Amino acid sequence: MSELFKQLRPILERNAAYHAALSLFSWDNETLAPENAIELTSHIIGTLSMESYSLLVNDNVKSLLEQLSKADDLTESETAIVRILTKQQEDIWKIPPEEYREYNELSAIASSIWAKAKEENNFLSFVPSLKKIISFQKKFASYRKKEGQSLYNVLLNDYEEGITTQFLDQFFDKLHTHLVPLIQRIGQKPQMEHAYNSFHYPKEKQETFCRFLAEHIGFDFSRGVMAQSAHPFTDSLHNHDVRITNHYYEDSLESAIFSVIHEGGHAIYEMNISDDLTLTPATMVSMGVHESQSRFFENMLGRQIEFWKPIFPHLKETYPEQLVNVTLDTFYHGINLSQPSFIRTEADELTYPLHVMVRYELEKQLIDGNLSVEELPEVWNQKFKEYFGIIPPDAANGVLQDVHWANGAFGYFPSYVLGSAMAAQIYSYMEKHLPVKELLETGDLKPIREFLAKHIHQYGAMRPMNRLLNDMMGEGLNVDYYIQYLTEKYSKLYSL
Amino acid sequence: MSELFKQLRPILERNAAYHAALSLFSWDNETLAPENAIELTSHIIGTLSMESYSLLVNDNVKSLLEQLSKADDLTESETAIVRILTKQQEDIWKIPPEEYREYNELSAIASSIWAKAKEENNFLSFVPSLKKIISFQKKFASYRKKEGQSLYNVLLNDYEEGITTQFLDQFFDKLHTHLVPLIQRIGQKPQMEHAYNSFHYPKEKQETFCRFLAEHIGFDFSRGVMAQSAHPFTDSLHNHDVRITNHYYEDSLESAIFSVIHEGGHAIYEMNISDDLTLTPATMVSMGVHESQSRFFENMLGRQIEFWKPIFPHLKETYPEQLVNVTLDTFYHGINLSQPSFIRTEADELTYPLHVMVRYELEKQLIDGNLSVEELPEVWNQKFKEYFGIIPPDAANGVLQDVHWANGAFGYFPSYVLGSAMAAQIYSYMEKHLPVKELLETGDLKPIREFLAKHIHQYGAMRPMNRLLNDMMGEGLNVDYYIQYLTEKYSKLYSL
Repeated sequence: MSELFKQLRPILERNAAYHAALSLFSWDNETLAPENAIELTSHIIGTLSMESYSLLVNDNVKSLLEQLSKADDLTESETAIVRILTKQQEDIWKIPPEEYREYNELSAIASSIWAKAKEENNFLSFVPSLKKIISFQKKFASYRKKEGQSLYNVLLNDYEEGITTQFLDQFFDKLHTHLVPLIQRIGQKPQMEHAYNSFHYPKEKQETFCRFLAEHIGFDFSRGVMAQSAHPFTDSLHNHDVRITNHYYEDSLESAIFSVIHEGGHAIYEMNISDDLTLTPATMVSMGVHESQSRFFENMLGRQIEFWKPIFPHLKETYPEQLVNVTLDTFYHGINLSQPSFIRTEADELTYPLHVMVRYELEKQLIDGNLSVEELPEVWNQKFKEYFGIIPPDAANGVLQDVHWANGAFGYFPSYVLGSAMAAQIYSYMEKHLPVKELLETGDLKPIREFLAKHIHQYGAMRPMNRLLNDMMGEGLNVDYYIQYLTEKYSKLYSL
Repeated sequence: MSELFKQLRPILERNAAYHAALSLFSWDNETLAPENAIELTSHIIGTLSMESYSLLVNDNVKSLLEQLSKADDLTESETAIVRILTKQQEDIWKIPPEEYREYNELSAIASSIWAKAKEENNFLSFVPSLKKIISFQKKFASYRKKEGQSLYNVLLNDYEEGITTQFLDQFFDKLHTHLVPLIQRIGQKPQMEHAYNSFHYPKEKQETFCRFLAEHIGFDFSRGVMAQSAHPFTDSLHNHDVRITNHYYEDSLESAIFSVIHEGGHAIYEMNISDDLTLTPATMVSMGVHESQSRFFENMLGRQIEFWKPIFPHLKETYPEQLVNVTLDTFYHGINLSQPSFIRTEADELTYPLHVMVRYELEKQLIDGNLSVEELPEVWNQKFKEYFGIIPPDAANGVLQDVHWANGAFGYFPSYVLGSAMAAQIYSYMEKHLPVKELLETGDLKPIREFLAKHIHQYGAMRPMNRLLNDMMGEGLNVDYYIQYLTEKYSKLYSL
C-alpha cells in the first residue's frame, strides 16, 4: 500500500464507523425501535452525523486528499476511494454545520412520521416534515450547484453521475412512445386469471417461503438478515452484514415474493463487493447500477417461467388450498399480468416506468418549479389519471406510498427505470455467454451470480456506470434493449 | 444552567452518542446480527470505542472537569454527572489506547464465541477468548488499583462502589450460615408437585404471554422493545428506548416468565430515570441497586400468590391442556419450590445465593489467585457438588451457562445477591406505606412503580447506594431483612 494512502486509513476507518453506526440506527428505526424513541434518538443521530461532518470538513484531510489525487502509486480501488471521498468532502463542505445537523435529525424523524401518516392514511400530518425536507434539499442543492445547473440536476447527480433532466426527458419520452401503445393494445385483450393472488396468505407462511426464496437466489444468511418494515428496503453495514426487509400483506401472494427477490438482488450485490472496498466510501457506482441488479433478479430472472419450474411445487405445498387450481402456466401469466395499478412496487414490468415518470415529473416541479407540497396529492392524482386512466382511492395508495421523499431522496426514482433498462441490456448480453434458462430450470443460480459479481458487483464504485457497462459488453447504456425486451415479452404474453 | 457546565454539554452529547451507538451494536450482535458479521463489525466497535476514549483522555476535558468539580452553582444532577465523568476519565486514562481498542474488539467477538460454545456445549472452544479477557481484566485492574488494593476489589468496585471481598466474605458467610440449614431441612420434606412445568409450551404462546406479563408489570412498549437472545438481558439507549430479551425453552413454563419479570424490572428502572440524567454517564448508581429492582419484580412481587391472582386465569387460558390440573395454589407452590438445580437464572430464591457464591469464589481465584481457565470446569463442578450435592451434566448446564465472563463482567455476580438483599429490605419498608398485597390482587401495580420511581429510579446515579437507601428508609443495606424474609417464607411453604 502506498505510504501516503496509509495516512488516509484512520480517516477511512472513522468515516466507516460513523456511517455503519448511522446505518444501524436507520435500520433499527425502520424495523424495531419503539415509537417514542425517535425524538431522543434523532439527537444521537444528529451528533454522529456531525462527527462524520467534522472528520471530512477539515484542512488536514483536504490537503491529504489533494496529495493523494496526484499520487501515481495507488491501486485502482485506492484511486476510486480518493476520488469519491474528495467528492463527498467537497459536497459536504459547502453545507453549514448547523444546517447539516438539523437536516440529519429531521430526516431521522421524518421517516417515522411518514410511516405513521401512511398507516393512518393522513397526508396532512406529513406535510410539515415534507416541506422542511424539500426546503433543505433545495438549499443544499443551491450551495452545491455549478453555474447554470438546475437544482434538480444537482440532486439527480447524487444517484447517477452525469445524468440530467435533458437526458431523462428524452429517455422517458422514448419509453413513453413505445410502451403506451403496447399498454393500450393489452387493454383491449382479455385479462389473465388472477383472483387467487388476493386469497388469504398468512404472514408466517409468507415469511417462511420468502426465506426459502432468498436462499434460492443466493442470499447468504450467514452474512445477512431478513426483517419486516413498512416499506421493503436493503441496508448494508459491510459486505458481511447485509440486511433486507419485507412487508407481508395477507391479501397478496405476489407482493412479498417479488419484494424479497428485488431486495435480495440488492443484497447479493452488496455481499459481492470486494473486501478492498467494503467499509470505504467507494461501494456504490450509482443507484441505477444498484437497481439494475435488484430489477435483474426481480424481473429478468424472477418473472421467467424457467425460474419457477424447480420451485413452483414448493409454492403449491406452502399454499395447497389457495393454489389448488393454479398451474405453473397460470401462475407465470399471473405474475406477468399487465394492467393499471396504484402501487409502484407491485406494478408489472410494462407499466412500471409510468409510475416512475409520475414521480419524476412531480419531483422536477417540487424542486425546480412552483409545485407546493399542499398541491401534491391533487397533482399526483391528476398525473396518475393522465398516465393510467385511474385515480388512487386514498393517499396511502397514492402520494404516500413511497418512503423516498421522507428520506430526502429526491432524484432517486429515475434510477429504477435506468436500472431496469440496464438489467434488460445485461440479460441480453448474459444470454450469449451463459445458458441462463437452463440454469434457472435446474435451480442453479450460482453461475449467474458469479457472472454478475465478476463484471459488476466486485467493483463497487471503482468504475463509473458507462465504463462498467462498456468494459463488460462493449457498449454503454442503451435503452433499446429494454424496449425490445418489453415489446417481445408482452406481445407474446398477450398474443398481440 | 451553570455557564461552566454548558461547556461540558457538547462533550456529554458526543459521549452519549458513542455509548448509544456501542449499545446498539451490542444489542444487535446479541439479538440479530448474522453469524459472520462479527469480525468486521468488531472493528467498527473498536473504532467507536477509541472515539469515546479520545474524547475523555484529553487535557481540555480534564481541566474543564477540574474546574467543574470546584464549582458551587451546579444542580444535584450536574454534580453527579461531573463526579462520575471524572471517575470514568481517571479510569480510562490509565489504560493504553491500543490495549483499550484491542479489548473492546475482543469482547465484542467473545460473546458470540461464548454463545456458540454454549450451544455446542464445548467449553474448549471458549478457552482462548476467556483467557485473553481475564488477562486484559487483570492488566486493566493493575493499572487502576490503589496501593494495597487487590485486583478483584478493583473490579468489584466497577459494579458496587466501596464493596470489598472482606465485606462480601462476611455477607455471604452470614447468608450461608442461615440458609444452608434451611435448605437441608427442606431437603427432608416431601417435594411440591411440579411435573407440569416441563410439559410442552410452544414458543409463540410463551412470547405472547410474556408480552402480556411485561405490560402487566408496567413495561411501556411505546418506549421499549422485547426480543430474543441466547441469555436474557436488558439494554437501554436512553429512557425512551429500553430493550429486554428473553429465551424461550419449550420444555419450561417458568423460565421465560420469571426472566421477563426480572428484565422488566430492570427496564422499568431505566424508563423512570430522570430526563436530566438520561444520555449522561450518571444513570446507574450501582449494579446492586439495579439488580434490587429486577429481583424486586421477579421475587418480591412475581412469586407472591397475590401477584398471580388476577392473571392466573389468563395463564390457564393460554395453556388449557398443560395446566388442566393445576390450581393457583399448586402453581404458587411450584414457582417457589426450592431444590438444588444447575442454572442460576432458573434457581429458586433460597438456593440462588449459593449459585452466586460459586461464581464469586471462582472469580476471586481467577483474578487474584492461581486458578487457570483450563481448570475452571472441573473446579466449578467440585464447588457445585460442595454447595448443592449435585454435579452439572455438561458445560452448558455448568460453567458455560452465563454470558457475564464473555462480556468481561468479573465482579458483577455479587450484585445479584446484594440486590436481592436490598429488594427484601425495600419490600419490608414498602409494606409499611403501601397496601402491596391488595394492589397486586387488583392487578394495579402503578402505585408500586411510582413508589420505586420516587425513591430510587429517578435518581439514576445521583446518590450513592447507601445514601439512597438511607434517604428512603433511614437505614443502609442490612442483610437481616433478606434472611428473615427467606426464613419466614420458606418455613411456611414447607411447614418447617
